Amino acid sequence: MADSDKQCCDHLAIEPAVREDATARLRSIRGHVDGVLRMLERDDVYCVDALKQIKAVQGALAKTGDLILRGHLKHHVVTAHERGDEDAIVAELMDVLKYR
Amino acid sequence: MADSDKQCCDHLAIEPAVREDATARLRSIRGHVDGVLRMLERDDVYCVDALKQIKAVQGALAKTGDLILRGHLKHHVVTAHERGDEDAIVAELMDVLKYR
Amino acid sequence: MADSDKQCCDHLAIEPAVREDATARLRSIRGHVDGVLRMLERDDVYCVDALKQIKAVQGALAKTGDLILRGHLKHHVVTAHERGDEDAIVAELMDVLKYR
Amino acid sequence: MADSDKQCCDHLAIEPAVREDATARLRSIRGHVDGVLRMLERDDVYCVDALKQIKAVQGALAKTGDLILRGHLKHHVVTAHERGDEDAIVAELMDVLKYR
Repeated sequence: MADSDKQCCDHLAIEPAVREDATARLRSIRGHVDGVLRMLERDDVYCVDALKQIKAVQGALAKTGDLILRGHLKHHVVTAHERGDEDAIVAELMDVLKYR
Repeated sequence: MADSDKQCCDHLAIEPAVREDATARLRSIRGHVDGVLRMLERDDVYCVDALKQIKAVQGALAKTGDLILRGHLKHHVVTAHERGDEDAIVAELMDVLKYR
Repeated sequence: MADSDKQCCDHLAIEPAVREDATARLRSIRGHVDGVLRMLERDDVYCVDALKQIKAVQGALAKTGDLILRGHLKHHVVTAHERGDEDAIVAELMDVLKYR
Repeated sequence: MADSDKQCCDHLAIEPAVREDATARLRSIRGHVDGVLRMLERDDVYCVDALKQIKAVQGALAKTGDLILRGHLKHHVVTAHERGDEDAIVAELMDVLKYR
């Protein structure tokens, strides 16, 4: 069972190209969060300016999530019936997608 | 090509049980929208009460969408590689899911 | 106390122009929901077509909510300090806005 | 006009307590983003695990935004009519809130 689990994980690892793209985007997001933190060091920062920056970070995170989701659908979900793990893969995906 | 298209559509029709469940939920949502309309006939209706009702309708619609999405993943997406239409099915699904 | 409550409600009723606009939009939304229900009567309806329609209805509801929210901010929230009900008005508004 | 602008900004700066709370939350969010970046260094990371982490960061950002929004409503929006800048404050707030 440990072996079949490993087999499963080997197959379902994130695609290298998606991983690189997501990493680059998350580094940029970290820099953006640093920018909001520096903005908040000033005692005259205006609430709406901070809200706009947080909204921009949320948009960048949503795009990163969409990128990983697209890769997951393309490389793992469309082949789930062939592997026989379709019930598990749909249940865990809906858990992430619902209430989104 | 018209034949293969029809073949495709036959395979990818919504599951009867999902269709029935979604129909029942949408009828309830229509009744809820009627209720908000009746609420708005009163000239003393309070904004926040209307906003709460709209938020409740949005929640009910989101659950109906999740139900159809789960059925689509379970019955159509997990078998896409076997049918050979995985690129098309992922592209159209991401179009619905992104910016959600 | 009953009198001051009534006074409060008189002041905070939705603006007539906003109420008319929201009513027209919700009637259109009800028609859209009827359209999705008719779509679901066909046994060959495709999941993604239903999802697209539900997403469109959600967008129309969000715009209706934004319209009422703008009216509430403009006519009731910006004057809350003068009336002295700012704590209550902020608490109830955040309850509707959070997790949005 | 430059003077009245400055006057305006002095009044509308973020509250110190909100600024401290938002700063602490954003530092935690930066740490969380670092954690996702470390997760993505492994070539066997699973898409859904990355998606769950991104969703958690989005939830933390949303709470930080709600905190700043509540402070803005409480300290700046409810007094806008007294200051006479209600049109501007509602317009810029709706710009941040819409499509949320």
